[in-house]
Amino acid sequence: MGIDIPTLQAVIRITAPGGPDVLSQFSAPTPHPKHGEVLIAVQAAGVNRHDCNQRRRGPSPEHSDVPGLEVAGLVVAVGHGVAPEWLGQRVCALTDGGGYAQFATAPATHVLMVPEGLSWTEAAALPEAAFTVWHNFFVVARLAAGESILIHGGTSGVGTLAIQILSALGHPVFVTCGSGEKVAAARRLGATLAMDYRHEDFADAVLVHTAGRGVDVILDMSGGKYSAANVKALARRGRIVHLSPGEDAALQVPLRALMAKEAVVTGSLLRPLPDAEKTAIAERLGVVLWPLISSRGVRPVISQTFALGQAQEAHRAMEEGHHIGKIVLTTASSLT
Amino acid sequence: MGIDIPTLQAVIRITAPGGPDVLSQFSAPTPHPKHGEVLIAVQAAGVNRHDCNQRRRGPSPEHSDVPGLEVAGLVVAVGHGVAPEWLGQRVCALTDGGGYAQFATAPATHVLMVPEGLSWTEAAALPEAAFTVWHNFFVVARLAAGESILIHGGTSGVGTLAIQILSALGHPVFVTCGSGEKVAAARRLGATLAMDYRHEDFADAVLVHTAGRGVDVILDMSGGKYSAANVKALARRGRIVHLSPGEDAALQVPLRALMAKEAVVTGSLLRPLPDAEKTAIAERLGVVLWPLISSRGVRPVISQTFALGQAQEAHRAMEEGHHIGKIVLTTASSLT
Ligand SMILES: NC(=O)c1ccc[n+]([C@@H]2O[C@H](COP(=O)([O-])OP(=O)(O)OC[C@H]3O[C@@H](n4cnc5c(N)ncnc54)[C@H](OP(=O)(O)O)[C@@H]3O)[C@@H](O)[C@H]2O)c1
Ligand SMILES: NC(=O)c1ccc[n+]([C@@H]2O[C@H](COP(=O)([O-])OP(=O)(O)OC[C@H]3O[C@@H](n4cnc5c(N)ncnc54)[C@H](OP(=O)(O)O)[C@@H]3O)[C@@H](O)[C@H]2O)c1
Repeated sequence: MGIDIPTLQAVIRITAPGGPDVLSQFSAPTPHPKHGEVLIAVQAAGVNRHDCNQRRRGPSPEHSDVPGLEVAGLVVAVGHGVAPEWLGQRVCALTDGGGYAQFATAPATHVLMVPEGLSWTEAAALPEAAFTVWHNFFVVARLAAGESILIHGGTSGVGTLAIQILSALGHPVFVTCGSGEKVAAARRLGATLAMDYRHEDFADAVLVHTAGRGVDVILDMSGGKYSAANVKALARRGRIVHLSPGEDAALQVPLRALMAKEAVVTGSLLRPLPDAEKTAIAERLGVVLWPLISSRGVRPVISQTFALGQAQEAHRAMEEGHHIGKIVLTTASSLT
Repeated sequence: MGIDIPTLQAVIRITAPGGPDVLSQFSAPTPHPKHGEVLIAVQAAGVNRHDCNQRRRGPSPEHSDVPGLEVAGLVVAVGHGVAPEWLGQRVCALTDGGGYAQFATAPATHVLMVPEGLSWTEAAALPEAAFTVWHNFFVVARLAAGESILIHGGTSGVGTLAIQILSALGHPVFVTCGSGEKVAAARRLGATLAMDYRHEDFADAVLVHTAGRGVDVILDMSGGKYSAANVKALARRGRIVHLSPGEDAALQVPLRALMAKEAVVTGSLLRPLPDAEKTAIAERLGVVLWPLISSRGVRPVISQTFALGQAQEAHRAMEEGHHIGKIVLTTASSLT
């Protein structure tokens, strides 16, 4: 495979709470894979909204100061208990931080093969969104065959993948976005109906398009600003799944309307999920999502790539919020 | 059976929005059972908090002005499509209003036999609480074997039955109540832990008693005043089921805490439930709850009975809120 494992590697660190300029490149020891882990020579690392939030909060004893929840690359070492067949495999993985680096570790059970035909950049853009979509729709919301969904943030990293996966599985997908350009992109990805929330009342539109019934599941990244409209747009026994706590104010739920529909308000956080549950999701992704990638052309949407050393610029782009799909960092040593 | 069906009968009507004194006795035509219905010569009729709320809102085109969601009595006539074997049976039934009367109709599929050994008063106190407990714990909250529960309003009509049913089925049951006397009553009924919410922080107490884990399902009639403490007292993937919208203010949900536990906030309204769902609940009650009544001594707790003509006094007693268990109206023509 021709990759030496150096003692020191380049990483991006959060040096203080603040804006993108608190990200700096350092030289740091290359980690050793622990029991059950693989070491990946990172070719590309996904950037997530979570990384910006973590950066704003600053270094913490809980987490690695190196951000990065997903990578793609070659397995160059394995820890105890990991089959040597992993060595040299082209993989992508969910990482618990540490992705903005030349080398990153991940539990082997959170690692998946790079699907046929995907570039390193595309593969690195897959894990966080794929795990998030799977967990929230199929575990938390128990999405059933044929149920309809509404996604706020249709062109987010999560949204762009969700539209493709769920429409490929036969679910009508409604989305909201914050510009005409984003609306057009969401439609191209397969959304049944994409709405510009600046100009349209999404609850009314959803009710018109569902003959008054409403949607079964709403994926919400708005942090609560849509609570009443969400309940209005929901079908009986529908579920609202929150991915973002927003400004951490209390969510205002219209209680009588919720009760009248037996509606559910819930949510989840992927990063603190127990390892065993991430493993179970990875298994399901291998069985259900990976085949859709080859058979149905499902693909992460890449908005922009930046070199690892340009992590500040990548965060600025994410926080400007004009991107459609994923922002990805690529390492200097890129292979093909 | 010896019961003549008179053309006119005595009923209690809501004559205007207001306090208990808007309830008046009238003479009204005895109803005829429609297709699928039975006519019941009412021996006793349960009083529910819902009746007080309906009375306060006043007459409405949606509902009968005769309150009453549950009765017990003899079947004296059957509509088209109902087996004649129903005639003469001792039954209790969920009624869509109309219970405060000498005769009431109900769909035959919402009728159950009076369980062996129960008085008319006890039988009349059963349907609303039993349907509510079943629907909310087993349909809405999907209570699983061994899961623990917390009930706010442990000595309400619903609470006193829920404690008995759920502890008989092996669930640890925690409850809160508003007086020392109510706490003692809840313990006698089988509550694992009963707390006086005036003197005790229920969330802390529940966490201590569950070794920090929390409870799986919370049944809440407080209308939202406990939202943050409820999420605190909840186990991971726990469900909070609301029975009361309270003052109709928005429910304040601590969103990040909800997400971190993948907790669920939901609720239901029994009265507007589709008939077919009430029928399904009745079937389950016959299979699961009725046997517990004979085998485990589960029994509605009767706080007070009033004659039909004393419906005003019955509402006053309910609104004073000192009762433990159910308040029931009995008709003059009582059989045994
Ligand atoms: N709970 C979890 O486990 C979990 C997992 C993954 C992601 N998430 C959350 O899901 C959301 C999407 O994640 P992502 O990485 O895919 O993010 P992303 O690509 O940056 O998408 C966020 C979307 O929010 C809108 N937006 C624009 N400016 C924003 C700003 N300054 N702050 C916040 N949102 C802005 C944009 O849509 P419009 O222009 O259409 O408004 C954008 O498409 C984020 O809130 C993230 O924290 C949660
Ligand atoms: N959504 C549904 O389908 C459904 C079905 C049945 C019942 N419910 C609701 O569930 C609750 C219990 O019903 P129930 O008929 O069993 O009522 P209930 O016997 O009157 O119980 C209500 C409980 O609330 C407390 N309370 C005291 N004074 C009160 C007042 N002025 N207003 C409201 N609550 C007071 C009391 O407990 P403490 O003294 O311990 O505080 C009492 O035990 C009610 O809120 C009812 O509307 C809803």
